[in-house]
Amino acid sequence: MPVPLQSQSTSSDAVFVEAVGRRLAEVLDVHLQRAETISASARPMVESIARLSASGKRMRALLCWWGWQGAGGEPDHPGILDAAVALELFQAAALIHDDVVDRSDTRRGAPSVHRSFESLHRRSGWRQDPAHFGVAAAILTGDLCLALSEELFAEAAESVGTGPAARERFNTMRFEVMVGQYLDVLDEVEIPAQDPQVALDRARTVLRFKSAHYSTVHPLALGGILAGAEPTLLSAYDAFSLPLGEAFQLQDDLLGVFGDPEVTGKPAGDDLREGKRTELVAHAMDLLSPDEGAELDARLGDPQLSADQVARLQELLEHSGARARVEAEVSDLGGQAVAALSELQVPATVHEGLSDLAQRILSRRH
Amino acid sequence: MPVPLQSQSTSSDAVFVEAVGRRLAEVLDVHLQRAETISASARPMVESIARLSASGKRMRALLCWWGWQGAGGEPDHPGILDAAVALELFQAAALIHDDVVDRSDTRRGAPSVHRSFESLHRRSGWRQDPAHFGVAAAILTGDLCLALSEELFAEAAESVGTGPAARERFNTMRFEVMVGQYLDVLDEVEIPAQDPQVALDRARTVLRFKSAHYSTVHPLALGGILAGAEPTLLSAYDAFSLPLGEAFQLQDDLLGVFGDPEVTGKPAGDDLREGKRTELVAHAMDLLSPDEGAELDARLGDPQLSADQVARLQELLEHSGARARVEAEVSDLGGQAVAALSELQVPATVHEGLSDLAQRILSRRH
Repeated sequence: MPVPLQSQSTSSDAVFVEAVGRRLAEVLDVHLQRAETISASARPMVESIARLSASGKRMRALLCWWGWQGAGGEPDHPGILDAAVALELFQAAALIHDDVVDRSDTRRGAPSVHRSFESLHRRSGWRQDPAHFGVAAAILTGDLCLALSEELFAEAAESVGTGPAARERFNTMRFEVMVGQYLDVLDEVEIPAQDPQVALDRARTVLRFKSAHYSTVHPLALGGILAGAEPTLLSAYDAFSLPLGEAFQLQDDLLGVFGDPEVTGKPAGDDLREGKRTELVAHAMDLLSPDEGAELDARLGDPQLSADQVARLQELLEHSGARARVEAEVSDLGGQAVAALSELQVPATVHEGLSDLAQRILSRRH
Repeated sequence: MPVPLQSQSTSSDAVFVEAVGRRLAEVLDVHLQRAETISASARPMVESIARLSASGKRMRALLCWWGWQGAGGEPDHPGILDAAVALELFQAAALIHDDVVDRSDTRRGAPSVHRSFESLHRRSGWRQDPAHFGVAAAILTGDLCLALSEELFAEAAESVGTGPAARERFNTMRFEVMVGQYLDVLDEVEIPAQDPQVALDRARTVLRFKSAHYSTVHPLALGGILAGAEPTLLSAYDAFSLPLGEAFQLQDDLLGVFGDPEVTGKPAGDDLREGKRTELVAHAMDLLSPDEGAELDARLGDPQLSADQVARLQELLEHSGARARVEAEVSDLGGQAVAALSELQVPATVHEGLSDLAQRILSRRH
């Protein structure tokens, strides 16, 4: 199981993270009752959202909260708590569908939602194909979760009086992450670009839209927009959050290949079996000999890769120098984020909170 | 191909239906450009939404428009056009995911979205599994379409000044249809209820939440709410739209078994292969001899049913008297809808428009 974020965080962070968890449970309990008025058989939809969203690093919620405070918002306003919870629900929805798309069996150290619906089917002795039922139920549950996230976000934005501007940014976030995920899937199946620079550019587009904007840039900006931030503050936020988000995703790419399954909660080499065309892979294709490059290219995306084959691909990514390149990039981007943060005109508590959060993100192990 | 609705509709209907098509194309064109700023490779996401939503009966759009006018709204207000277009986009999103869930190959006489992405994969000579790529791309495209529908609806509601109330009803609609769809899938795999009344009740719950509320009740009410309708008018709308929506879905169930593929745009007996536990099936299980009931039960949901087997199940549903029972129900519900309509206090043009629409719905052949 992932190490809980709270243990490493400042005390105000920890208080907010706890409040997010409580409010999430409360909101989902209302929806559970709402589902039950239709049919008790619908409970597993809401229950699976509750189970999935009970854990998580709450990075987006925290960034939204600090972004709000940096623009003068009161830290304990119920509207910002709900907006943060809405971001966590959006993330849960994205994960539910992402795991179907990536055929991932586990998430946060537990079975992914489609796998848990598949188990429910088997346990219950139902008819037809358990795996297809799992996928169907997860698609519909993800849709429900997507709707619930937007419902809560719109209400929260309305309650703080910045509805239209905040909703517009929320819409941009959704649009970018869905398009980014599609491009990610496309990169796994398309014939890879021969030109190393084109391959790197493609990987960077996916990284930026699927992840960096979504994981750090939009959450921080949304907090600011909800509190009525001026454009200059929002630009200063971006200068910090964009390199931070890119570093976050590059580390995620490293963890997807070299991460410890005990800590990440995902099988070793998961990204290799999925065939993710990350910057790490693009660098390796550029650096490896033609034979080794062809070997990497041929094996990537084989869902049946053995542990030995995973180890061999890890070795290729390591000795090519691709891992070192990406680690250097993470360090460079981290430096840019820290430098931008030092120039951010926000109260000291916000500065400290963002600095702590950035440090945790930059030294993440899961 | 389905017969275009316009040919049977009154002239003002036809004008609005055309306006919906034009505005849909316009809105999606903006999103196509938005996608292109991320990457030209993302075009097929928006293009597949545009292709799917270019046709359709526009029943929800029309009900919303009449509901708006019945509550005093101006027929050519741009806000109601956008709200109607948003409902059509929501329907497109639901269809995209529904076809994955139901493993349907065709929709509106053309390949379903996951099948067309699968073809794109094959045509392009891409790598890995074309069918899985199709499903993955359709999940993400459906998510995008869901987000776009909500984005447009919220803006439209805001523009007419009834944002929060209209959004609340929109949220109820989404919640009910997603839960209803899950219950529909569940009914296909669960061991059928032995008690005929329980089986009928289950089928009626799915029919009501997945379809009747969604297809007629909420669209008409949304139009009214957008125009600031009083609760008494909304109740009167429901008295008309609920039986109408139930009749609509019961006919859909009949068409799913007995419909002409040339007219419905779906293969003959599609619902039988999917194993839909409709009221039609519940009545047949109640009416058939134990042997014939067991035969129907065993064959339902077999995706490999041959044309002869489909014909045999059609015969069972026919000679059991189940078809006649459902047809009688449709007629009865139609009568209730017409009676409720005659008491509706709305301008004559609205009355006439709803009456025409109800007649088309009640005599639908696709």
